[in-house]
Amino acid sequence: MNYPNGIRKTSPQQKPRASQGFGNRGMTLEEDINITNKYYLETNLAIVHKKPTPIQIVNVNYPKRSAAVITEAYFQQASTTDYNGIYKQRYIDFEAKETNNKTSFPLANFHEHQIKHMQSIIDHGGICFILLRFNAHDETFFVKAEKLLAYWYDQLDGGRKSIPYQDIKTKDFLIPFHYQARVDYVKAIDKFYFANNER
Amino acid sequence: MNYPNGIRKTSPQQKPRASQGFGNRGMTLEEDINITNKYYLETNLAIVHKKPTPIQIVNVNYPKRSAAVITEAYFQQASTTDYNGIYKQRYIDFEAKETNNKTSFPLANFHEHQIKHMQSIIDHGGICFILLRFNAHDETFFVKAEKLLAYWYDQLDGGRKSIPYQDIKTKDFLIPFHYQARVDYVKAIDKFYFANNER
Repeated sequence: MNYPNGIRKTSPQQKPRASQGFGNRGMTLEEDINITNKYYLETNLAIVHKKPTPIQIVNVNYPKRSAAVITEAYFQQASTTDYNGIYKQRYIDFEAKETNNKTSFPLANFHEHQIKHMQSIIDHGGICFILLRFNAHDETFFVKAEKLLAYWYDQLDGGRKSIPYQDIKTKDFLIPFHYQARVDYVKAIDKFYFANNER
Repeated sequence: MNYPNGIRKTSPQQKPRASQGFGNRGMTLEEDINITNKYYLETNLAIVHKKPTPIQIVNVNYPKRSAAVITEAYFQQASTTDYNGIYKQRYIDFEAKETNNKTSFPLANFHEHQIKHMQSIIDHGGICFILLRFNAHDETFFVKAEKLLAYWYDQLDGGRKSIPYQDIKTKDFLIPFHYQARVDYVKAIDKFYFANNER
């Protein structure tokens, strides 16, 4: 259970996805987003990078005439979201998560400091959202952070511990799949944050 | 020479700084910026984080019932700047560098992809700058990325390989030192990018 974001151990349960959906995609959400960001970068549409996984370095060897080797280090929990950048002059910030659940998205996928970070970003006028993939349905949704936060605060008051799939399916933005922009999330940003949808 | 940003080996040459300047600071620029960002975060003034150092992980042990241990990994070169975030609804992005040079700041401190990244950020309407510290003078300056880029492109045309200290000293913003906001760079942002300087 000690795998942080970005370090994903392939497990037999995840394998079947490769043969599901159209196009035999079989990629993780993170891989799809990386390809999308690369495409955005190359077409000069948006500048978004994944932040490296934070690692606590304990020991490093410096062999002569060759690169330093880290010989002992540990994964640290990220204190922010995984992605941020700029799109149409606006600061954007998001987190991406997958679930194998079919009927709801568990809030336990998020940490309290990520929630705090998202709230701050909204307060400071940034565009903040989450990309949620339901592996079983092969669907990825754009969900505004405001919605996640509402569910989170409700949970603290004794509310439900997950966002129902039906709630997302009926109210949020299903992100289209494209070969290059595999998770074409700026389509959703255009729709929700910009009056003119021209690209 | 294989120390990336953020992994700084203390060396005897750097020690004297501790007894220079006022207040016996003796901290690296990175440490000062981290404290500043923490202060900005706590006072809800700006949300800026340092990106973790990118590391290529080669080997990980997963001992039972304890945290995963990375046993072989290498430092990677960052493809962007080290810091980004949001201030007064604007995307901000910067890099911080120190030099022991007294008379100029060598452009070799920057990589080509960092330069490209900075150019892109400006093109997309972000606020982009560098924080340059001259250790010998115990001074830290706020320099717009536009200026660095002008010197960089000039260098490619056969121009000089560094920015003269006098050019920075006379034209750029000397960042004041405060106990909590040790490198109070938003003062410079206010001056250069916002008409109203109220905080």
